[in-house]
Amino acid sequence: MAPRSVQLVLHYDGADFSGWQRQPAARTVQGVLEDALARLCGQPVPVLGAGRTDAGVHARGQAAGVRVPERWTPAALRRALNAVLPDDVWVAAAHEMRADFHARYSAVARRYSYAVGLDEAAASPFRRRYEWAYRRPVDAGLLDAAAAALVGDHCFRAFAVRGTAPPEDSHRCEVREARWEAHGPRLTFHVEANRFLHHMVRFLVGTMLDVASGRRPLASFVALLSADSNLGVSAPAPPHALVLERVTYPDHFYLSPA
Amino acid sequence: MAPRSVQLVLHYDGADFSGWQRQPAARTVQGVLEDALARLCGQPVPVLGAGRTDAGVHARGQAAGVRVPERWTPAALRRALNAVLPDDVWVAAAHEMRADFHARYSAVARRYSYAVGLDEAAASPFRRRYEWAYRRPVDAGLLDAAAAALVGDHCFRAFAVRGTAPPEDSHRCEVREARWEAHGPRLTFHVEANRFLHHMVRFLVGTMLDVASGRRPLASFVALLSADSNLGVSAPAPPHALVLERVTYPDHFYLSPA
Repeated sequence: MAPRSVQLVLHYDGADFSGWQRQPAARTVQGVLEDALARLCGQPVPVLGAGRTDAGVHARGQAAGVRVPERWTPAALRRALNAVLPDDVWVAAAHEMRADFHARYSAVARRYSYAVGLDEAAASPFRRRYEWAYRRPVDAGLLDAAAAALVGDHCFRAFAVRGTAPPEDSHRCEVREARWEAHGPRLTFHVEANRFLHHMVRFLVGTMLDVASGRRPLASFVALLSADSNLGVSAPAPPHALVLERVTYPDHFYLSPA
Repeated sequence: MAPRSVQLVLHYDGADFSGWQRQPAARTVQGVLEDALARLCGQPVPVLGAGRTDAGVHARGQAAGVRVPERWTPAALRRALNAVLPDDVWVAAAHEMRADFHARYSAVARRYSYAVGLDEAAASPFRRRYEWAYRRPVDAGLLDAAAAALVGDHCFRAFAVRGTAPPEDSHRCEVREARWEAHGPRLTFHVEANRFLHHMVRFLVGTMLDVASGRRPLASFVALLSADSNLGVSAPAPPHALVLERVTYPDHFYLSPA
């Protein structure tokens, strides 16, 4: 029998994971999922993520593709996984997909959020797990201007870890939405693009906050959008306030309505 | 020089603590605070809590009293503590108090909240840390009726762990507020009283949810408010969704405005 192609939509708290990707001696989300699936299915089941999140990064909408024995309906697989997975990973949904669905290459958009806390209470244990407690005064107008400059098709070589992409690979990303939203003393950056480079959102946020706190001019941020190296970029913002919110696939990959 | 009497207002995430009270071989909030204060002050500084929270219970307003060398102003003490305390404890405020301030006996009210998640997504790692993911349908009208029955002066012997209070101690508590609040699929129980018995909020919530899910009649809950043992009480609700929100002291104990 042909295996069943299933997309898992995942929430995880990244605090106790060494990131997404399986590693021999570390606890990773992919590793935990593959171990659970092997137990349930009685055979190795590789889990392919839409993207690799760094250590500490959270997800409320990571997508992963699996091929499982046909006896596992998506609903049964979801229930069984949630019964055996640890408390910091949760399968929010499971969808049956076309056989040619590929969690990484079929994705047409990814969406992230990044939370920054500007008040002193951002250091509270209930917020510091999920927000960057930022100590300097911030000019929200400069954040808005920087975000607006991001929208469109740009080369993001300046906002990527060097040497992580093969030389022939493009650094171009099409940013469809980039905006800061304020909720009282909390600022959240929402960004959606067709793809993201390694550490890209964290470099963007770190550099935008240097602009907004007066440590570098807005023009220097805009200039990075056509720079050919990452030498001028600011330090990346910390991972624990970053959330992979959603991965989008074209409707035609879904066998049942998503 | 006379020591300075300071009230610390504390937030903590209870997940990784074996409760408030210092124990020889366990990580507790009191133990962590006393260790930090001994380091800062160069002498043992006992920390007296307004109440002892159980293992797993959180606080967004626990109060503790300390006597520190006079060179420590409340503001300096707060800054220094927050610099050395682990990430899951935070001093939200520090107030200078009269010499006769006693964190436990001076308190005139305590306030708790308890969060219950009724939708499936309450199992998400971002919510299950702080909510009781409750699997059964709940009649909100019955919760409201049960909460209303609590208000007033009652004997709460039925909602306390047996044998934890000395026989001569009273089980009477004056409940000033008790109500359930709905935010979408999340229900939060707010309760304020002059005092609480050991496990009392968790017994109340566990029993109220048995009523609201049809597992026991409302009358049996009301009857417990005049029962002379805890034999008929339901199982206590789990600790991780309980938060000590506030401890109230009369204004005259504060040397500076609170």
